[in-house]
Amino acid sequence: MVKNLKFNEKGLIPAIVQDDDTGEVLMLGYMNEESLGLTLSSGEVWFYSRSRKELWHKGATSGNRLIVGSVWKDCDNDVILVKAAPLGPVCHTGEKTCFFEKLTKT
Amino acid sequence: MVKNLKFNEKGLIPAIVQDDDTGEVLMLGYMNEESLGLTLSSGEVWFYSRSRKELWHKGATSGNRLIVGSVWKDCDNDVILVKAAPLGPVCHTGEKTCFFEKLTKT
Repeated sequence: MVKNLKFNEKGLIPAIVQDDDTGEVLMLGYMNEESLGLTLSSGEVWFYSRSRKELWHKGATSGNRLIVGSVWKDCDNDVILVKAAPLGPVCHTGEKTCFFEKLTKT
Repeated sequence: MVKNLKFNEKGLIPAIVQDDDTGEVLMLGYMNEESLGLTLSSGEVWFYSRSRKELWHKGATSGNRLIVGSVWKDCDNDVILVKAAPLGPVCHTGEKTCFFEKLTKT
């Protein structure tokens, strides 16, 4: 099923991470085929860091790893959704989620 | 605040839509600056269709529009999260969410 996925021209696919318990959307990262494979096989979330251009085991340094509950793809095969249990705050700011700033009209 | 957003080289930013009531992640689309502005001003979700290369008022044809509850940005200013009330199934397949297929290791 992973074979049918559409990675973009950079070999990446966006991956949304949602808290499997609370339903809160925590972050969006990008995976290449290898990081998706590692996510599925290891049971922890791996991304591909676009800035560092390397595999990124989320939380490996901070300890705030993401334990995979289930992995889903969308109907167009070009987005991943991971339902996971975070071991700590996901955001580098210390916030629980990266989506903590509300946009307004102005 | 919209001014600080980072649109990609194609002028787009990924936008996650989450059911404001159930917390379910419904879909991911892409917005350009104009569609984000329309989303904020109209109170309904507008995307930019990458295939049709035009503004896309989600649900305008089907009636399954997305009524905006709140709009959020992530800590890196490069992802949008819209919490919305869907007037019907979001997915073109008739499913409530576009994420209805689970990935497995094999």
